Amino acid sequence: MNFMAVTPEFVARLAAVLGDGGVSTAQSERELHARDQSHHAAHMADVVVFPTEAQQVADVLRLANEARIPVTPWGVGTGLEGNSIPVYGGVLLSLERMNRIVAVHAEDFQVTVQPGIGHKDLNQQLARTGLFFPPDPGANASVGGMLANNAAGIRTVRYGASKDNVLRMQVALADGRLIQVGSRSVKQSSGYDLLHLFVGSEGTLGVITEATLKLVPVPTNMSAVVAAFPSVQAAVETVVAVRGSGLDPAALELVDAAHCKMLREAEGVDLSDHPTVFMEFHAAQESSLEAGLSAVREICDEMGVISFRSTTDPTERKKLWHARHHSYEIMVRSHPDRRFFINDVAVPISSYPALIGYVEELKHEHQMTTYMIGHAGDGNIHVEFPYADDFEYQRALAMNKLIVIRAIELGGTATGEHGVGIGKAAYMEFEHGAALDVMRTIKAVLDPNAILNPGKIFPETVRTEH
Amino acid sequence: MNFMAVTPEFVARLAAVLGDGGVSTAQSERELHARDQSHHAAHMADVVVFPTEAQQVADVLRLANEARIPVTPWGVGTGLEGNSIPVYGGVLLSLERMNRIVAVHAEDFQVTVQPGIGHKDLNQQLARTGLFFPPDPGANASVGGMLANNAAGIRTVRYGASKDNVLRMQVALADGRLIQVGSRSVKQSSGYDLLHLFVGSEGTLGVITEATLKLVPVPTNMSAVVAAFPSVQAAVETVVAVRGSGLDPAALELVDAAHCKMLREAEGVDLSDHPTVFMEFHAAQESSLEAGLSAVREICDEMGVISFRSTTDPTERKKLWHARHHSYEIMVRSHPDRRFFINDVAVPISSYPALIGYVEELKHEHQMTTYMIGHAGDGNIHVEFPYADDFEYQRALAMNKLIVIRAIELGGTATGEHGVGIGKAAYMEFEHGAALDVMRTIKAVLDPNAILNPGKIFPETVRTEH
Repeated sequence: MNFMAVTPEFVARLAAVLGDGGVSTAQSERELHARDQSHHAAHMADVVVFPTEAQQVADVLRLANEARIPVTPWGVGTGLEGNSIPVYGGVLLSLERMNRIVAVHAEDFQVTVQPGIGHKDLNQQLARTGLFFPPDPGANASVGGMLANNAAGIRTVRYGASKDNVLRMQVALADGRLIQVGSRSVKQSSGYDLLHLFVGSEGTLGVITEATLKLVPVPTNMSAVVAAFPSVQAAVETVVAVRGSGLDPAALELVDAAHCKMLREAEGVDLSDHPTVFMEFHAAQESSLEAGLSAVREICDEMGVISFRSTTDPTERKKLWHARHHSYEIMVRSHPDRRFFINDVAVPISSYPALIGYVEELKHEHQMTTYMIGHAGDGNIHVEFPYADDFEYQRALAMNKLIVIRAIELGGTATGEHGVGIGKAAYMEFEHGAALDVMRTIKAVLDPNAILNPGKIFPETVRTEH
Repeated sequence: MNFMAVTPEFVARLAAVLGDGGVSTAQSERELHARDQSHHAAHMADVVVFPTEAQQVADVLRLANEARIPVTPWGVGTGLEGNSIPVYGGVLLSLERMNRIVAVHAEDFQVTVQPGIGHKDLNQQLARTGLFFPPDPGANASVGGMLANNAAGIRTVRYGASKDNVLRMQVALADGRLIQVGSRSVKQSSGYDLLHLFVGSEGTLGVITEATLKLVPVPTNMSAVVAAFPSVQAAVETVVAVRGSGLDPAALELVDAAHCKMLREAEGVDLSDHPTVFMEFHAAQESSLEAGLSAVREICDEMGVISFRSTTDPTERKKLWHARHHSYEIMVRSHPDRRFFINDVAVPISSYPALIGYVEELKHEHQMTTYMIGHAGDGNIHVEFPYADDFEYQRALAMNKLIVIRAIELGGTATGEHGVGIGKAAYMEFEHGAALDVMRTIKAVLDPNAILNPGKIFPETVRTEH
């Protein structure tokens, strides 16, 4: 990477585009935008910019491209693989001030937004329409960041990941062009699908400056189930059977025995020390829910369920799911002296028992404390490693590597929903083979000076810390 | 386009890869592969090849690329926009003999197939698993062709288009490389989404040699509704209300008054001369269906429904839907002296009444016979123009042009599900603007000699007939 340094003249050119209030070289701003929520090392940019409209984003890219200065886009910094850490310095392009709803298309179940809006803020503002944007990665991630990383979350088993819930975007390219990709028409077979090329490209091909999202009606009736099983095998078989039944769960989560035990011991959460499946169902009719629950109960009984609790009452539902929704915070609170390394891999569901068996073996063999939470319905797991020092951290990295390799071996992927960022770049060749060369070809032609989010996705550009 | 001619030496090189039985220069074979089901003029290739495995496809592309000879991939020829007509001659690459199921992954609700298998044949072979591949464009299109054109059909409102039902593909590139794109893991945030770049690219970026498809459980309970309304406006508002209710229809179709009248007059189909909405619902529980139907009835009553028929009985359901399922054949049978030009545009659903109003106006103004069938739930319509001579044909082309322009003006697309092929290339600049240049850039870098399906998608490559 032969980038040029940020000079006072370059900063002045940025200020001419953005106004003085839109450009900062202050240490405090640079520090605020130097790390995400991952374990990856912080790195400061030389200058932070705050565009308020798409044309400014395009102009910043054009200037940076002409000057050969790297640009790293930033949503709100909730990434988990260092996706928006400006490892080569240069410009940090914060989209925080582009956080408006542009238009609600209620009849079309669509909303057009600027990229910096948090998905929770968006859903709060949409509440009066009876519609919501379903992908939910937990944190109040920005919509632009979610699209750039193809974030997913708990309800993806029913509603899909970010890539499934976007119809149209405006994207600023490295050379300063602004293009429209996709269509507000839900059906489109017109030319190449550039929309999905930019979704998940982590800001390495362009910067999303506007997006039209799909919305779905807020479910009027919801039920919840929490079921504990004697073995992970039984729990996973239940997951497969529920999916095969046509019951269409809105969430289908697995929490391992160690995690349940920790939640119980830490805060008296009402769970037994067994692998536990959390389910949620949405329906237009109350009666559909009731019928669905008895079908679920039957499946669980067949799989030798140890305890089964279910409800259609909203208050009761929140209580039942409390442990799952707050599992991360409870874990963090109960390990005040630890940091956390969070793994993210996904496999075809038929390989899920093998993957989880492998994790259990590793854990036993290396005598390490780990907790596991899985979006089981999607074949996705997160193994969480608490660590207190660099020895534990390095061991967590090693275990993570073994798990990633095993997931790919099982027909899966190095990352189900956190993206490649810095942490998964080393596995791209292994996972994609010759297709990685095609990705490189496309990158080279759309961003010939490699200014867009350098150090991400492509292994040869990563500055290794480990 | 500066292509080279097919020489006997080149044919011999093809035969060395494919065996003598895999290569034909016979007039009969070339004629069989010269036209699809559209109105576009036939054009013969110079040689037809029949690979039986992926490596042969890759080898054919490598040879053709070295020799600068065009290659047009062919599924079964059911395209509707000339998508697989070899307008520049050269090699017609038929995938007819690559028509096997490679593996059924029943636990994962997936199947891996070769591209030449018909989707109806696939579903017949899958019947014993209780799973099916939902996209259904009507004809027994090949899966590879469906993916290449992102075909959709009646059940897309619930199950999505072809692009939403594929997880992984093997693709042969112009230079003879074979790559894997996507993953059997339903979740993947790993690098660029090349899968969706190739889906819908109509064989202009590569040739699909294998695909892993998503399957869904065959619904155990289905209901059907046929409801007639006093106006198109009322019918479309019903469609919007049904979608907004969270009822999740599996099909939501509009047949216009003219089409209903024709169906009734031609074959005594039991429909009134009013805009009619056909609906289908799928559910795991019988009771859910009943509850759903009464909710649908309420919505229809509010919209002033004239007649409402519904059923959950399978035999009765088939009878109710007969008119919709066979509307095309009945139309063709009742106009023995006509050919048909089928239009295909889609808009955001809020613009559907405006689009249909415009079509009605045009029809009235130009005194033309047209029939309209719409995948209303998706904002997609097909206006069908019967024509007897070149004057009627040219008028149909002109009307089609007006409808396409209006659809794009309404925020929609030139093609909802038939693809660009020859017929829609003229609208690409208009629909995509600067994004078309990005498509050209990607095309140029992946197929530098432009050998892959030339004359499609990009306006500058089309040999105009009109």
